[in-house]
Amino acid sequence: MSKTMNSYERVNTVEVCFSPALFPDFRNDEAITVIVDILRATSAIITAFMNGVRRLIPVATLEEARTYKERGYLVAAERDGIVRDFADFGNSPYNFTREMIEGRDIVYSTTNGTQSIMLAKESHRVVIGGYLNLSALVDLVLADNRSVIVLCAGWKNKFNIEDSLFAGALAERILGHAHFTTICDSTHAAIDLWNLAKKDVLGYIEKAAQRHRLKKNKLDDVLEYCHTIDLTRCIPVLKQDYLTLLNAV
Amino acid sequence: MSKTMNSYERVNTVEVCFSPALFPDFRNDEAITVIVDILRATSAIITAFMNGVRRLIPVATLEEARTYKERGYLVAAERDGIVRDFADFGNSPYNFTREMIEGRDIVYSTTNGTQSIMLAKESHRVVIGGYLNLSALVDLVLADNRSVIVLCAGWKNKFNIEDSLFAGALAERILGHAHFTTICDSTHAAIDLWNLAKKDVLGYIEKAAQRHRLKKNKLDDVLEYCHTIDLTRCIPVLKQDYLTLLNAV
Repeated sequence: MSKTMNSYERVNTVEVCFSPALFPDFRNDEAITVIVDILRATSAIITAFMNGVRRLIPVATLEEARTYKERGYLVAAERDGIVRDFADFGNSPYNFTREMIEGRDIVYSTTNGTQSIMLAKESHRVVIGGYLNLSALVDLVLADNRSVIVLCAGWKNKFNIEDSLFAGALAERILGHAHFTTICDSTHAAIDLWNLAKKDVLGYIEKAAQRHRLKKNKLDDVLEYCHTIDLTRCIPVLKQDYLTLLNAV
Repeated sequence: MSKTMNSYERVNTVEVCFSPALFPDFRNDEAITVIVDILRATSAIITAFMNGVRRLIPVATLEEARTYKERGYLVAAERDGIVRDFADFGNSPYNFTREMIEGRDIVYSTTNGTQSIMLAKESHRVVIGGYLNLSALVDLVLADNRSVIVLCAGWKNKFNIEDSLFAGALAERILGHAHFTTICDSTHAAIDLWNLAKKDVLGYIEKAAQRHRLKKNKLDDVLEYCHTIDLTRCIPVLKQDYLTLLNAV
């Protein structure tokens, strides 16, 4: 990709990391890290902020989630798609209605999503991404004018299709702008997979193991919702050890 | 993929692991692991056996390689594509001519390839794969009638395009046979990338970072050779701590 620019202008990179287990080799504390867990953690988190949650506190273990519950917090906690018995919510975006959560703080633990958030916490900025806030993410990255790492939460450290497709969609949009380039093979692969899938994403993700896990557990009512582009401008961002709305007062 | 078979018949899985760093989550001691480092380690190793090498001893560190050299072995050792000063060969398949190596033992250390071999050593069988021996690999897997993991050596723990394309080519061939199935997202992705690329693989890998690393170091004379399908039936296989020819007497 050859781009004409003055030599004093900053050139940022776009990289896609297919698994949290690979993140140590991508880590760049000067970059924005976008956490992606399309089915369903990051789609649910974006929805929660869209519906007025105040803070969302990601915790890595179920024990921590349980301790918060005992201290009176609302708690969302699941493993392998199943809500834990002590929790108020699972991982469906449909749980986070305005009536339930507006102005509240929620503690959140999921199979893959929250671990990835904490892994990236030394980044310049950690934001939560999904189709729901795609254009807002692109605009943020352009405004920040920094390198970007798209961290796919995957499934138990493995590559997954649904996160990689979104990574391709986001990377392609960002790379359409001057000052952004990539020499990262996984970024090229993600973009090519996105272009294969984009005409019928829901058809394509029939190949995805997570699509069938959700179906088996009767949790696949969210597929279309989680692939809705630009439902909101909300961007959840990590601040110290909790998520809050970008530009929240 | 629905396949009609009697219930007592074994169904094997095909999985693609995009990086050595992800292998712990794939490890299956009952499976065949195929090690892939197309540019250039596994293409070079296959060539060495095609040209009559007796044993090839993979070592993980340059220190081990140097120690073997001092004991009189022929040594192939490179890092980042550059031959080390104490070594007899680098990582080009063209180094391993019959005149140089027939009947000899070679000690071998590369940036990515040999580490992956040792990582997989507890597998039922560890074999060395590439386009050069593609059909022979498929036939071996069918004859063994076991699950297969295709381990892409990648680049310093990152996903790379050239190994993933080959993984897709191999997985697609194996999955064309009864008794083999997959629920592995990276296998589906690799197959889709292979189908995008296969009409012009050398054109497609212009996207690959390794292609440009080799060009920069004037080592890209091997691209077409390393993508030649079925040059040989030779399959190097790990036996204890060295590679030998499958079915060698």
